Amino acid sequence: MRLADAGPTRSGEIDFVYGPLAGSDFPTLTWMKALRAVERQRSRRLEYEDSRGNPDLRRALQAHLSQTRGLACSVDQLMIVNGSQQALDLCARLLIDPGDGVVVENPGYRMAHHVFEAYGGVLQCVDVDGHGLVTDQLAKLGQAQLAYVTPTHQFPLGSFLPIGRRRQLLDWAEEHNAWVIEDDYDSEYRYAVRPEATLQSLDTRGCVIHIGTFSKTLSPQLRLGYMVLPPALVETFAATKRLTDRHTATGVQRALAMLLENGSYDRHVRRVRRFQQARQQVLVSALGRHLGDQIEVQGAASGLHLVVWFRALPASAEPALVQAARQRGVRVHPLSPLFNPRGPAAASRRPAGLVMGYALLDREAIEDGVRSLVQALPEVRRLIQRSP
Amino acid sequence: MRLADAGPTRSGEIDFVYGPLAGSDFPTLTWMKALRAVERQRSRRLEYEDSRGNPDLRRALQAHLSQTRGLACSVDQLMIVNGSQQALDLCARLLIDPGDGVVVENPGYRMAHHVFEAYGGVLQCVDVDGHGLVTDQLAKLGQAQLAYVTPTHQFPLGSFLPIGRRRQLLDWAEEHNAWVIEDDYDSEYRYAVRPEATLQSLDTRGCVIHIGTFSKTLSPQLRLGYMVLPPALVETFAATKRLTDRHTATGVQRALAMLLENGSYDRHVRRVRRFQQARQQVLVSALGRHLGDQIEVQGAASGLHLVVWFRALPASAEPALVQAARQRGVRVHPLSPLFNPRGPAAASRRPAGLVMGYALLDREAIEDGVRSLVQALPEVRRLIQRSP
Repeated sequence: MRLADAGPTRSGEIDFVYGPLAGSDFPTLTWMKALRAVERQRSRRLEYEDSRGNPDLRRALQAHLSQTRGLACSVDQLMIVNGSQQALDLCARLLIDPGDGVVVENPGYRMAHHVFEAYGGVLQCVDVDGHGLVTDQLAKLGQAQLAYVTPTHQFPLGSFLPIGRRRQLLDWAEEHNAWVIEDDYDSEYRYAVRPEATLQSLDTRGCVIHIGTFSKTLSPQLRLGYMVLPPALVETFAATKRLTDRHTATGVQRALAMLLENGSYDRHVRRVRRFQQARQQVLVSALGRHLGDQIEVQGAASGLHLVVWFRALPASAEPALVQAARQRGVRVHPLSPLFNPRGPAAASRRPAGLVMGYALLDREAIEDGVRSLVQALPEVRRLIQRSP
Repeated sequence: MRLADAGPTRSGEIDFVYGPLAGSDFPTLTWMKALRAVERQRSRRLEYEDSRGNPDLRRALQAHLSQTRGLACSVDQLMIVNGSQQALDLCARLLIDPGDGVVVENPGYRMAHHVFEAYGGVLQCVDVDGHGLVTDQLAKLGQAQLAYVTPTHQFPLGSFLPIGRRRQLLDWAEEHNAWVIEDDYDSEYRYAVRPEATLQSLDTRGCVIHIGTFSKTLSPQLRLGYMVLPPALVETFAATKRLTDRHTATGVQRALAMLLENGSYDRHVRRVRRFQQARQQVLVSALGRHLGDQIEVQGAASGLHLVVWFRALPASAEPALVQAARQRGVRVHPLSPLFNPRGPAAASRRPAGLVMGYALLDREAIEDGVRSLVQALPEVRRLIQRSP
């Protein structure tokens, strides 16, 4: 299999960044065909659409989510947004008041946390272990209005929240009359796990807001995501989306509807899933070969990144690790910024960790990158021994 | 000149709606060519862009605004947003606190007013006359944080704010340390007036936020607009746009940049300006022929709509007018909903008014529509005589 390679970057660096996708993985021909069809079928009347999104896309997405994620929702509950970031912004705007508690995973997706804080939410950090959110800690928290979780693939640690913890989280939400945001951000990339029941499908009380994105399968530049809303929230969210920006742009919505309807989206996802899994295998194998027991690899069952813990290095060595790798032409990204600085998990007790994304790299770049990273380690040890 | 016709609608109605554009006026071939070029030049790395928008588009827009609107601003001050609605939402979110006064035109653009109210703003309505906002009323108002105006083409009355009033508004803003939003929403359609200095270019203190949209020249479904921000606001707005939805979708931004760069946008605007002016002339002439002194036509110097006042009918007759026209296959839209219900201008003192848009209609539809509207008038008189 020939893997696309979007790195080394112009500067010659190999970037293990998480987030960007390789342009060459994008289904350009399929997408152009859909865009052409959309342009040819332009409506006679160009007017504002339903703020919940294009009806064709919502119908196609409802069928898709029912089939791939087992979601039971009506088309009415679906709202198309400008990526999951807008979903988070709308939730924060509508569901929390200044001073309200918001339960978040620690480490977690900091851009979500920033949105909650921007609306005056007070973060209540809960630890994450190999099985996701440590739900036993929920009972010890104060009142909260909202919980934000990534149960399918915890960001960044990659764990899957087991059914017992899912039930515990929903029970907590019921007891506190709280909302739960289920961020399903890269559920398309499952390699070693089977699809499991989402929080949305376990929810009997209508408290779960399920959100997803096309940024991980197509492109973050499309700005396309969706929300599955509890029926009681639909009207308020639709009215607010309308005030915010009327609706998401029509062209890309209609093109995506075509891709979903004619099966080419599913084919594309199967294709890139193979690419990403192959990249991941190269990375895991290179790390194992070079570093063996010196590291622990976490989160390889799914997604577009791994977490790599360096057993013998403290978390405080992360900047040195980043710097030494950079000098060898490799960009790596530390884990510490994904911990809440006011959260309970003390950096002093953690080993150094990296979030290693592989979506931009081909086999050779991954192999070269790991080799350079390994060569950087002696210098990291020197650097941290020198510091007080 | 052959004018596109997007009406009669499927139901056979002729719709004098303001807002939608005719699909056949859209530059489909030019746009498809740009989209193809964008797809062919896809970046190797698909990642989030600058939240202020695509750099190519911002550079091209800066040159365009300097040339067509005389705006002196740096590329740094430009931010691309999802239509002017998002510009208004960001302004409301960042510039007003609950309880703050917001000066608005009455009648005015109600979707803007709704956004200010959604963030707790308290509307302070100022009347509008044939020269726009009656700035003499400003001195009588209480403290306000923000003023929202449409000086180039007052919505809905179509008046142009003369230089004296512009200066008066800016002086008021300086005295009250208030921000001014200048909504330049359809400045491309000037038929009988020459371009004048914008508030933005008169502003020496950095208090004017200039906003514009491509919804009136290309399509409201593209969701493309822009803000020209005072330097002091750039950082905060960019950070908030990033939290809100990262950035506006890349594809349409890059396509629009090409249209601006290669001159096809300017050609398109010149072309549709001719179409719209021809439509307007047909409408004005039909109204004059059939109704003569019974009506007063306002706002014909620019834009995509007229205001038609029926001298002999009170504002309370508007629903009857709409209903009687509808029975004859014509949709007309009353002026009263554009007045703030809590504003000072009493409906009892106003004649009945219609906002008549013509962007969807060809000559024949406009002629037929006016004829049917005229035939509806006797019934309107009967209806209002019967009511208590």
